[in-house]
Amino acid sequence: MYIAHKHIDEIFEYDGSQINPSWAFQEFGIYGSSIITWIGPVNITADNLKDFADVGLEIKSSNMVNFICEFFDQQPPNMRIAYLRQRLLVMIFREILTEYGIKTKREGDDIFVDGGKLSISIASVSLSSAKIHFAFNLEDKGTPEDVEVCGLFDIEDEEENQIFNDDNLLDLINETVLRFTDELKTIENDISKTKVL
Amino acid sequence: MYIAHKHIDEIFEYDGSQINPSWAFQEFGIYGSSIITWIGPVNITADNLKDFADVGLEIKSSNMVNFICEFFDQQPPNMRIAYLRQRLLVMIFREILTEYGIKTKREGDDIFVDGGKLSISIASVSLSSAKIHFAFNLEDKGTPEDVEVCGLFDIEDEEENQIFNDDNLLDLINETVLRFTDELKTIENDISKTKVL
Amino acid sequence: MYIAHKHIDEIFEYDGSQINPSWAFQEFGIYGSSIITWIGPVNITADNLKDFADVGLEIKSSNMVNFICEFFDQQPPNMRIAYLRQRLLVMIFREILTEYGIKTKREGDDIFVDGGKLSISIASVSLSSAKIHFAFNLEDKGTPEDVEVCGLFDIEDEEENQIFNDDNLLDLINETVLRFTDELKTIENDISKTKVL
Amino acid sequence: MYIAHKHIDEIFEYDGSQINPSWAFQEFGIYGSSIITWIGPVNITADNLKDFADVGLEIKSSNMVNFICEFFDQQPPNMRIAYLRQRLLVMIFREILTEYGIKTKREGDDIFVDGGKLSISIASVSLSSAKIHFAFNLEDKGTPEDVEVCGLFDIEDEEENQIFNDDNLLDLINETVLRFTDELKTIENDISKTKVL
Amino acid sequence: MYIAHKHIDEIFEYDGSQINPSWAFQEFGIYGSSIITWIGPVNITADNLKDFADVGLEIKSSNMVNFICEFFDQQPPNMRIAYLRQRLLVMIFREILTEYGIKTKREGDDIFVDGGKLSISIASVSLSSAKIHFAFNLEDKGTPEDVEVCGLFDIEDEEENQIFNDDNLLDLINETVLRFTDELKTIENDISKTKVL
Amino acid sequence: MYIAHKHIDEIFEYDGSQINPSWAFQEFGIYGSSIITWIGPVNITADNLKDFADVGLEIKSSNMVNFICEFFDQQPPNMRIAYLRQRLLVMIFREILTEYGIKTKREGDDIFVDGGKLSISIASVSLSSAKIHFAFNLEDKGTPEDVEVCGLFDIEDEEENQIFNDDNLLDLINETVLRFTDELKTIENDISKTKVL
Repeated sequence: MYIAHKHIDEIFEYDGSQINPSWAFQEFGIYGSSIITWIGPVNITADNLKDFADVGLEIKSSNMVNFICEFFDQQPPNMRIAYLRQRLLVMIFREILTEYGIKTKREGDDIFVDGGKLSISIASVSLSSAKIHFAFNLEDKGTPEDVEVCGLFDIEDEEENQIFNDDNLLDLINETVLRFTDELKTIENDISKTKVL
Repeated sequence: MYIAHKHIDEIFEYDGSQINPSWAFQEFGIYGSSIITWIGPVNITADNLKDFADVGLEIKSSNMVNFICEFFDQQPPNMRIAYLRQRLLVMIFREILTEYGIKTKREGDDIFVDGGKLSISIASVSLSSAKIHFAFNLEDKGTPEDVEVCGLFDIEDEEENQIFNDDNLLDLINETVLRFTDELKTIENDISKTKVL
Repeated sequence: MYIAHKHIDEIFEYDGSQINPSWAFQEFGIYGSSIITWIGPVNITADNLKDFADVGLEIKSSNMVNFICEFFDQQPPNMRIAYLRQRLLVMIFREILTEYGIKTKREGDDIFVDGGKLSISIASVSLSSAKIHFAFNLEDKGTPEDVEVCGLFDIEDEEENQIFNDDNLLDLINETVLRFTDELKTIENDISKTKVL
Repeated sequence: MYIAHKHIDEIFEYDGSQINPSWAFQEFGIYGSSIITWIGPVNITADNLKDFADVGLEIKSSNMVNFICEFFDQQPPNMRIAYLRQRLLVMIFREILTEYGIKTKREGDDIFVDGGKLSISIASVSLSSAKIHFAFNLEDKGTPEDVEVCGLFDIEDEEENQIFNDDNLLDLINETVLRFTDELKTIENDISKTKVL
Repeated sequence: MYIAHKHIDEIFEYDGSQINPSWAFQEFGIYGSSIITWIGPVNITADNLKDFADVGLEIKSSNMVNFICEFFDQQPPNMRIAYLRQRLLVMIFREILTEYGIKTKREGDDIFVDGGKLSISIASVSLSSAKIHFAFNLEDKGTPEDVEVCGLFDIEDEEENQIFNDDNLLDLINETVLRFTDELKTIENDISKTKVL
Repeated sequence: MYIAHKHIDEIFEYDGSQINPSWAFQEFGIYGSSIITWIGPVNITADNLKDFADVGLEIKSSNMVNFICEFFDQQPPNMRIAYLRQRLLVMIFREILTEYGIKTKREGDDIFVDGGKLSISIASVSLSSAKIHFAFNLEDKGTPEDVEVCGLFDIEDEEENQIFNDDNLLDLINETVLRFTDELKTIENDISKTKVL
């Protein structure tokens, strides 16, 4: 199972349209399963909202790291698999933060630090692919007033030093993608050496 | 999505036959998806081996906590979902250990503590259900000589106090099952409020 | 397999939009599979028509009992299962009428009494769920002129007494939902005790 | 959706092996989906038992009408569809009995007349096809002593005349098969004229 | 597996809307899987474009033979099966041309003669059916200027005689449909005589 | 979609057991989808026969080129996809022979040259993978007496020169595998750039 990873250096807004199928092909000519990552503001328009529980809410933040995953392997796409993989991504990201000494809480697909919401996520499917959007705040800027938010850059270690900054952010992004795609590959490998019941 | 949990107080051996479909119905009259937990030795016979990579190896331990999960919701059963749910179970168990202050490492479905293998796991499917076996050692007793093993009861905190013992083991088992089944339910809930692409 | 049932006491029109996915979540905050029942007029707009054979026809009636079923268990949803479950619902409703001594005829998903059309039904799927709309007339009022219609309240026993009225209608609705959901549960139970071939 | 029907005139025993996949091809050279019907004793060997709830029980009767249905259309076969189609067959058979004026009760896939068990049924799947065995007693002969049984030939109308006999039995068999296969075809037709959500 | 074939004698344009699900039912009242063939111009509007790689390109030709295939057998429809069947159709058409002594090249779903593009094709799915559009040029007329095109009527044998013309074109169309539907039926037959692993 | 190809230089018999799931992993440690090719005799034991139409027949030949393909991408495996891919492999092999100037006939998955059977093939599935066995004769040696057989090495061009021999056989094998795996990849690429209906 090959999954291409492309990190885009330019800043652009996630407005919710990037979760549409074949976005990676249309924008970057990428065939097959892929993960596109970039840094930019998030401001999801009502039209592009995928979580019916969020209708009427603002989902926005001025500075987030975005992951858009698209999977074509499972045909027809299966929403259950989409959400299981989403949980895997969120939990792997959390495992990495734990290794950096950061205490987090997780509720479903949400990660919290010190009571502040660090991340947002949604999964969904079309008939051609499954998509996941996962994003975490770098700062608490441009976020809804009624939500307590934590930015990655706000997190400090015990000596009150900032743990992540512009120098090691890309390492974190790459490490997250690498562990996630590796995990999916070990699952495929496990399948190919398992006797059925 | 309702998943029955039954903890069996008697000690009995996991010989690998318990992974067969409808074992929970045949042994305990349980209909539908279920998780059966118990404490007992593990000694998988060659006939019951499901991991082709383990052919010729001994998989045994005198004292383990066993989880047998069976899922009938996905029809026909899907090996990919079986392994994704297995990873979820393993990672949730690991999240709980982390909360107890225990440092662990994870490689796929294996958990290690201080270089010793704490747990074993396999997933597989028949045409009626998906099954997961997950088990962790309580002690390093009766395990293969060439494998470094860690038992849960061997793990100590910084003051060299044993963290788990017979008094709080059942809490750990119940907590693991509860969080795992809750996670699966939140996934089903997420599906029912997601707009498709 | 848990299926929530909610009967809505208010009268509102079925215009065909209620068959859209996650309607029960959006309107009533219900997670997972559900059956919503209510009494009200039916007047399906051209936009909301799901049966291509009905294009150009009027589907309307002033006083019907409506059932909207939504199933999230089968992922990805399967139109064949949606229609098989629809037939089950229609046949169970007919079984109950037979117990009340009412002679009916069935053609596919249509039920007739004395040559008059008692009920309408459609099934369809999105990528998140399968939906069934089933409705039966209480009176022959506001129905298309070129269709012979029978209302449930028009049916009389041999002594020319009306069989159903406002006093026992809710019992009929609840009994229909209960038997249907029970049937689906026995099917799931049957799966969990069946040996595969 | 074409389903071949072949009625076998010879008497032979249903021992449970006929539910295996491709039995109709191996015995009669029939390609594709089919329904084979015949009259004969039933005596299911322990090896061929498919219902784990029946382990240790005798399932036998000296004189039954047997239906073996095999479906290759759904790939991969789906146990849920197998059981939904089984319910359809049982309910259609019951609808026909009702038209003959026979009062019956149904519990899942069992039909009762006057408290006596008229029929038995099981559904299951292999990876190539779904199979249904449905059989009803003609007489209460050779059946387990602890089960109250009703034979079709024992049923009488209000004037105490036997309703079914050797003269009209084949009509009943053919009518049951015809309505069942017609129902499945109308479902496929419904699919091809339904707009998705 | 029954697949209806209807050849339409009137000339009409393929504008891309004919690939929508249930078009054969809506236009011609055809239930179930079908292949509709006709001769006419092709001019796909931007709205109806299904290949994201063709965005911004003109796909048009004044005189093509069109095949629209719709399959309802696989539920839920599977894009992988849609494309495998498309390749089968294209390769079978090519096999027939080879029998006529015509040398062709194939790249995926495109057929070339003497460097000129003879055919176009796309496959896609909705939740009710899988669809294939396959069309080949009769002449190089009304085609995009930047594409080298070959028309079937332009192909000559070694004595420079035109191989296909209005007299034998319908035979070619019928033969292509017949072999393709026969191939799909032999596959279904093969399934019904194969032992699973 | 990555498919490993391994050609085994040693000669060994195909006895039918190599079609079992995970054979490539168990024998060669290969994870994931793969094609194993080798030269050797074929002699399928009754136990390993997968085509119920061949029961009682001998399937043997002293000198064949064998292809064993295993696919783990489609979960759960689908017999329809297995046979569609088998047809693709057979037709691609035939396309290559045509390019070498060899006239062949094809009936389903059988290739004939001058009335002699050149190849045999079967496809099947377990719950973990889909498998294809395809093999063609090099000589008419050790084959059943009642079958007219053609060996690849027996085929001559118009000047009566042998077309294939030990020098170019491996090229043919590699070219066949390469085009087949390329075709499957272009199908996956096509999926990732197709708009759904």
